[in-house]
Amino acid sequence: MRYIVDLKEGEQVQEHYLCINKQVLKTRAGKTYYSLKLQDKTGVVDAKIWDLNDGINDFNEHEYIKIDALVITFQNSIQLNIRRLRKSSEGEYDPKEYIPVSNRDINEMYNELLTFVEDIDNKYLSTLVKKFFVEDREFIKTFKDHTAAKTMHHSYLGGLLEHTLCVLNMCKFFADNYKVINKDILYTSALFHDIGKIKELSKFPIIEYTDPGQLLGHIMISTEWVSDRIKEIPGFPEDLAYMVKHCILAHHGELEYGSPKKPQTIEALALHFADNCDAKLRTFSDLIETSDVEDNWLGWQRIFDSNVRRTRY
Amino acid sequence: MRYIVDLKEGEQVQEHYLCINKQVLKTRAGKTYYSLKLQDKTGVVDAKIWDLNDGINDFNEHEYIKIDALVITFQNSIQLNIRRLRKSSEGEYDPKEYIPVSNRDINEMYNELLTFVEDIDNKYLSTLVKKFFVEDREFIKTFKDHTAAKTMHHSYLGGLLEHTLCVLNMCKFFADNYKVINKDILYTSALFHDIGKIKELSKFPIIEYTDPGQLLGHIMISTEWVSDRIKEIPGFPEDLAYMVKHCILAHHGELEYGSPKKPQTIEALALHFADNCDAKLRTFSDLIETSDVEDNWLGWQRIFDSNVRRTRY
Amino acid sequence: MRYIVDLKEGEQVQEHYLCINKQVLKTRAGKTYYSLKLQDKTGVVDAKIWDLNDGINDFNEHEYIKIDALVITFQNSIQLNIRRLRKSSEGEYDPKEYIPVSNRDINEMYNELLTFVEDIDNKYLSTLVKKFFVEDREFIKTFKDHTAAKTMHHSYLGGLLEHTLCVLNMCKFFADNYKVINKDILYTSALFHDIGKIKELSKFPIIEYTDPGQLLGHIMISTEWVSDRIKEIPGFPEDLAYMVKHCILAHHGELEYGSPKKPQTIEALALHFADNCDAKLRTFSDLIETSDVEDNWLGWQRIFDSNVRRTRY
Amino acid sequence: MRYIVDLKEGEQVQEHYLCINKQVLKTRAGKTYYSLKLQDKTGVVDAKIWDLNDGINDFNEHEYIKIDALVITFQNSIQLNIRRLRKSSEGEYDPKEYIPVSNRDINEMYNELLTFVEDIDNKYLSTLVKKFFVEDREFIKTFKDHTAAKTMHHSYLGGLLEHTLCVLNMCKFFADNYKVINKDILYTSALFHDIGKIKELSKFPIIEYTDPGQLLGHIMISTEWVSDRIKEIPGFPEDLAYMVKHCILAHHGELEYGSPKKPQTIEALALHFADNCDAKLRTFSDLIETSDVEDNWLGWQRIFDSNVRRTRY
Amino acid sequence: MRYIVDLKEGEQVQEHYLCINKQVLKTRAGKTYYSLKLQDKTGVVDAKIWDLNDGINDFNEHEYIKIDALVITFQNSIQLNIRRLRKSSEGEYDPKEYIPVSNRDINEMYNELLTFVEDIDNKYLSTLVKKFFVEDREFIKTFKDHTAAKTMHHSYLGGLLEHTLCVLNMCKFFADNYKVINKDILYTSALFHDIGKIKELSKFPIIEYTDPGQLLGHIMISTEWVSDRIKEIPGFPEDLAYMVKHCILAHHGELEYGSPKKPQTIEALALHFADNCDAKLRTFSDLIETSDVEDNWLGWQRIFDSNVRRTRY
Amino acid sequence: MRYIVDLKEGEQVQEHYLCINKQVLKTRAGKTYYSLKLQDKTGVVDAKIWDLNDGINDFNEHEYIKIDALVITFQNSIQLNIRRLRKSSEGEYDPKEYIPVSNRDINEMYNELLTFVEDIDNKYLSTLVKKFFVEDREFIKTFKDHTAAKTMHHSYLGGLLEHTLCVLNMCKFFADNYKVINKDILYTSALFHDIGKIKELSKFPIIEYTDPGQLLGHIMISTEWVSDRIKEIPGFPEDLAYMVKHCILAHHGELEYGSPKKPQTIEALALHFADNCDAKLRTFSDLIETSDVEDNWLGWQRIFDSNVRRTRY
Repeated sequence: MRYIVDLKEGEQVQEHYLCINKQVLKTRAGKTYYSLKLQDKTGVVDAKIWDLNDGINDFNEHEYIKIDALVITFQNSIQLNIRRLRKSSEGEYDPKEYIPVSNRDINEMYNELLTFVEDIDNKYLSTLVKKFFVEDREFIKTFKDHTAAKTMHHSYLGGLLEHTLCVLNMCKFFADNYKVINKDILYTSALFHDIGKIKELSKFPIIEYTDPGQLLGHIMISTEWVSDRIKEIPGFPEDLAYMVKHCILAHHGELEYGSPKKPQTIEALALHFADNCDAKLRTFSDLIETSDVEDNWLGWQRIFDSNVRRTRY
Repeated sequence: MRYIVDLKEGEQVQEHYLCINKQVLKTRAGKTYYSLKLQDKTGVVDAKIWDLNDGINDFNEHEYIKIDALVITFQNSIQLNIRRLRKSSEGEYDPKEYIPVSNRDINEMYNELLTFVEDIDNKYLSTLVKKFFVEDREFIKTFKDHTAAKTMHHSYLGGLLEHTLCVLNMCKFFADNYKVINKDILYTSALFHDIGKIKELSKFPIIEYTDPGQLLGHIMISTEWVSDRIKEIPGFPEDLAYMVKHCILAHHGELEYGSPKKPQTIEALALHFADNCDAKLRTFSDLIETSDVEDNWLGWQRIFDSNVRRTRY
Repeated sequence: MRYIVDLKEGEQVQEHYLCINKQVLKTRAGKTYYSLKLQDKTGVVDAKIWDLNDGINDFNEHEYIKIDALVITFQNSIQLNIRRLRKSSEGEYDPKEYIPVSNRDINEMYNELLTFVEDIDNKYLSTLVKKFFVEDREFIKTFKDHTAAKTMHHSYLGGLLEHTLCVLNMCKFFADNYKVINKDILYTSALFHDIGKIKELSKFPIIEYTDPGQLLGHIMISTEWVSDRIKEIPGFPEDLAYMVKHCILAHHGELEYGSPKKPQTIEALALHFADNCDAKLRTFSDLIETSDVEDNWLGWQRIFDSNVRRTRY
Repeated sequence: MRYIVDLKEGEQVQEHYLCINKQVLKTRAGKTYYSLKLQDKTGVVDAKIWDLNDGINDFNEHEYIKIDALVITFQNSIQLNIRRLRKSSEGEYDPKEYIPVSNRDINEMYNELLTFVEDIDNKYLSTLVKKFFVEDREFIKTFKDHTAAKTMHHSYLGGLLEHTLCVLNMCKFFADNYKVINKDILYTSALFHDIGKIKELSKFPIIEYTDPGQLLGHIMISTEWVSDRIKEIPGFPEDLAYMVKHCILAHHGELEYGSPKKPQTIEALALHFADNCDAKLRTFSDLIETSDVEDNWLGWQRIFDSNVRRTRY
Repeated sequence: MRYIVDLKEGEQVQEHYLCINKQVLKTRAGKTYYSLKLQDKTGVVDAKIWDLNDGINDFNEHEYIKIDALVITFQNSIQLNIRRLRKSSEGEYDPKEYIPVSNRDINEMYNELLTFVEDIDNKYLSTLVKKFFVEDREFIKTFKDHTAAKTMHHSYLGGLLEHTLCVLNMCKFFADNYKVINKDILYTSALFHDIGKIKELSKFPIIEYTDPGQLLGHIMISTEWVSDRIKEIPGFPEDLAYMVKHCILAHHGELEYGSPKKPQTIEALALHFADNCDAKLRTFSDLIETSDVEDNWLGWQRIFDSNVRRTRY
Repeated sequence: MRYIVDLKEGEQVQEHYLCINKQVLKTRAGKTYYSLKLQDKTGVVDAKIWDLNDGINDFNEHEYIKIDALVITFQNSIQLNIRRLRKSSEGEYDPKEYIPVSNRDINEMYNELLTFVEDIDNKYLSTLVKKFFVEDREFIKTFKDHTAAKTMHHSYLGGLLEHTLCVLNMCKFFADNYKVINKDILYTSALFHDIGKIKELSKFPIIEYTDPGQLLGHIMISTEWVSDRIKEIPGFPEDLAYMVKHCILAHHGELEYGSPKKPQTIEALALHFADNCDAKLRTFSDLIETSDVEDNWLGWQRIFDSNVRRTRY
């Protein structure tokens, strides 16, 4: 594949890209043209279609397209002049080439996650988590591929799985070090805490908040989803259900971050810490690894409400 | 009935009261005695059992008891010296005598509430609200009797019904005045917004937060309850479900007041205003009507974060 | 009249518009030209005067002008090339055509407002409100025409009257439902609560904060204005004056919103609720009715600190 | 005079004291007795009247009384057993003996304040301040004696005068050091900024918030008072009035401290700083000078939201 | 040893206890007596000395005393009537019997901590930490015995060591999972982050904030201490010193928690998370393990700003 | 010197300026050109180098350059077309011409500052301040020239000295008026409170936060610097050191403004007030004096969180 990052001025390129933005504009002379943004996993490039001739077939934003274009330079940036264009057919392109994927192998991560599923001793909780992570093939497929967040930086394919696994590992650290923690409740809640993101965010390539995502939020969606499955398990203790649902509800830690209850059990508190530590340390790691700023200072970051710095030692 | 407010020093009283507090103490001389607090709807009185003889039968806190006692004065207050005591049997007493009841007739209020139920045109919403307010006898019975809050001031029998009705009336005012409001969604959400309190607070006479009340909260409980019933209605539009659930979730108005989402639709905003205005104006009314402070200033009130004043004109 | 919204490319237009912005610029070639923004109640359009010949008479920003211009299209937008221009004379244009006016008839609304004035029984308060709303012709005229806010969205001619009337209606609802409320004090305060806006904001077409508006604010101005008139009424009870002034001072509800006192009486609280509910629900209604966004989501709104959504049912 | 601080067990005392608290209680035996708190400027002492005989004349809380009593010790504290009691007549006692008075001579301070009055050059402002501080004898008398605050620590007779003078001196420092400051506006505003306290707090010996104090507050009262007098001065420039009134309104510095506007002019800012610095440094000085704690640490102080420490060097 | 928790009514006890409170009071009859609180690691007990005879030798608060006393019951609690009392001599008692000690062996923990010291590769940092944790015998001794906090619950002998070790272990978890973290800087900062507590809190048995503790705080003290030692190491890179000092300064995470800088490097952020997670989860664990409340709900806890609950599964 | 403010279209200019920004760009035609910003103390001007011929020597941002250029007008602004350019040599230009300098004479201010140094009676504090302000020539030189802040508005040469002197004068006012203040501690702390800015901000012409500035901050740097020198003075009382260091640490007044401790002594509080008053009043003065806005309203200012106004009387 001809990656965007490797395009050189002057060459002719025929390739499939994801069209993430399409604008219909007019020149001063009143002629209609298209201004596009094309993406693959290595970057984004501007493209123009000045001549809307027969070679330019119908297509929409967020579709894969096959283009034939000349690479030029405009204001120090690469730009594509498209001469021919058509929609790509499924199978012609591999979605994984168009969005950053987790560096780790997805199946390997999933197998590691299953060791936590196996490690749950309580029979009701074990039944509950297996209903999702072992028996529900559609859930498993979606869960494995889903991204953990909307913004480009963390929207890996497999991001949700990777985050869940990191949270589980930190939960194991906590359960090992603070013996009063109920491991089964903690692992169960950790496995479920973000599954609502599957419904909160639409799937790649159009990663947007959905209607239920905006109106209800993933905390509510996760809790209700787990609640529904609990009802299918005969004899599931009512108190145990409250405990697990409380951990999910409270995992943002504070009311002002969208949790309707603060953590009131040690498992809820531990889950909140694990979720928060991984989210922040992962973001910081990504910043350091992906920043192309040469300076040690990487600028003010909203998530940390601070200017942050690379450590060079 | 011999009301607490009418007890006079020197008289002998035989009556049923609700025991809301029971302490086992010792005199300096080492003799065990009981210190009780007894309640009826007119007030609370201290009582002592100095002599634990055969006339004093077993009983527990939060039970109704029949006592035979002498009324004395101690440190300017009335006190009861109990000589005989037994548990009351159901039927010997009328619970409504032991807790303030709404001034309005409960059935009359319920009938008024049903006019709102009837006023919902959308067939799915109409089916949904009738499943609760017309068809579910157990729900109706509990809903009618439930109190709307834990603290003494607002814990009327019928308080939840009265509050819901006031909110509905204000919602009608809003729907009449701001035409873009969808009346059906607003009434439906108003009817359901606090039903979770039925499970959040235990029933009279022990009005305490329950486990699900503390761990999940009435917002979450209401939403899930409605959600479950929606699933029983074939063809209920998904978007309509989001709208109703959003209104319930968002009715506290701000994340820091326990809503996991802020109001994002005009119906959610209107419901929040109606709920907030009734809660605050009702509390203020009760304060003015029940305060026995002679001064116009009624002291600092936590709910208003202010000193408040009676208007005398 | 030839409304801006109806202008078509290629036509020649002679019409009066309000000039809300005038910039004197230079072309690269060093030639001076004017860039204007013209407004009528249907919208705003850019206009250029490339040739400053004799046909272009003197005029200033915020004046009405009569233009003769060609309608062209530039970068997908309509633009006017002005060839002749002169100031309009009073009488040639109707100000109501240049700013959105309340949909409701102003005199009809004023008559409805007068029913509240008549409904005040207390003789001192009745005298006080009539001094403004019945006897003071200049006040009445200004009050009827004034806008309730600076920004375009709510600056209707008649906006202040419409808002005041809505607040009064909600106050009536409160007074009917919470019997301890003193209706006379509440109506009086509602009538006066925003009259200071007449001095806080300059009149159409230049709606800007005035010096007293910025330095004192409408809360202070309203209170002082009422206070001055009270002094003209013999025997006006001192306590009654405090009550009314307190309601006006406290109607923003919280110190951080500019009220120097929080509501301490039930009338002050009710006025605050009525003011807040109308301001927010009206803004939400306007948003839904005027937004030309096709999506259901209308974007993040500062006043609600939230993304908001149109309900489509 | 026989000061409370000097009373000794066993002695008989006949003296006038201020009765700041009077409770009518009953002994266990059912006999009525009075429990009083008496005050002079050196402290407060408990007193009992066990025998309500003919020697005990009528009196009320907050009145001066002449007593004949025996000094005893109860639970390590001095207590008075009163045998005879009557109201004191005016002239029999000197109020200054019953409340702490400013250490500085009141007339001397007032003369110093008048130098600021004389230092105002602007003829309108000069006229305005003289209407209060030179011509209005009743105002001058009340202003000189008034306390600046309700709580014991700062309620000196003359406290308002002393505070105003300190603020003026600091304003002079600011005007000398930051030349753009308009000295006349600053001095005028400083002279007036707290005059509303005269109406906000009732007079000694019952220093309580009054109705206008609670409902309007001294900021509003001061501003309106100045505003009324301005209207009596022909030709007083409107803008100048806004400036002075703005300084008074804004002198608490932040909306959440009760100013309806933040300081927007340098004079308003300087007045706020002078007021705040004197209030805090004076309180700190008083704490150090009056604390009888031997430790260097004087405990947590609400006004500083901190534990504070005496410096011993 | 005769532990306080095991004392029985009626028995005579001769034992050494720590006197943590001593009050000199008078009976109604005017006779002086002492009221004491005595402590060992199992609890606290009230004691009275009614008869100040020759058998009662001089002693002060916060000293160890040998008593001879009768155990009685007063108002349902055990109380000691002391007949003879003298100060204990060093060697007669073992301080570890009078304050809760970490459950883990102190030397074993210290050896585990030394493995982190050994694991630091950077030669300057290695030299720096060894100056404290290997070479400075007085520091090591104090560090091992110090408590980590003032309040009873966490003031274990060895508490500072135990907390530091837990933080180090969590730092290891972070360094293993987020590869961009500089392990050497993180371990070094973790070892040092709370050493200032040695000077902030006085030593057992009088655990109080010291003057430097209150005026400077342990964050400042730790940083300055490390800074001083760095100056003794030739060639210590300036940037490396900033990194370590920044981590110590920022470890409270937010300005409002007393850190003068927010975490700006990933090591500073990781240290903050480790410190915060251990402090909170340890406190929660202790609460669950030590609470003698039978209910699952353990009451509102200031540190969590929430009611918290024991998980029973 | 040919000041930027005086440049006229059409003239040819040869002058030294400070290059504060240099961008390498390409024309549409693909030709490289430079876009510069040049500065002297009178302003900033855009400059272009279209032709990178032999006359254009190497240079970097933040260097002084000698240019030969034509003054043209582009889009109503003056612009320079540079034909020849070389770096300036030291001595060819006077740095004081390129940055605003304090209006007051630096040596005169320093002599005034020394009178405070002389006024310190305590021998330890006197020794301490003289170590910096009398004996350390390098410190004195840097201190005299340093700017007090990063942004253009307050970055006077001599700004740090001027600010320190103003703070000292206000401290003198406080010490004269509140007698419990320890003058020696207050003056000492005032002299030192901002010396860390010398290391926090790099020197003119590149005024940027340094690494220690960002990671430690000037509060920490000042404190540590003073602490180091204190250790060189034999017998310096430990408590006195705590007092001075506390004042420096606490001078921002609140934790959220970066002070790790709130002011706990009256000297710390006084220093905070002096620092805050001068910073704010000086900024306001500068705004009024330098603003070229003709309107009285100077726009919203972040430091005051308010729109501010010039007083015209």
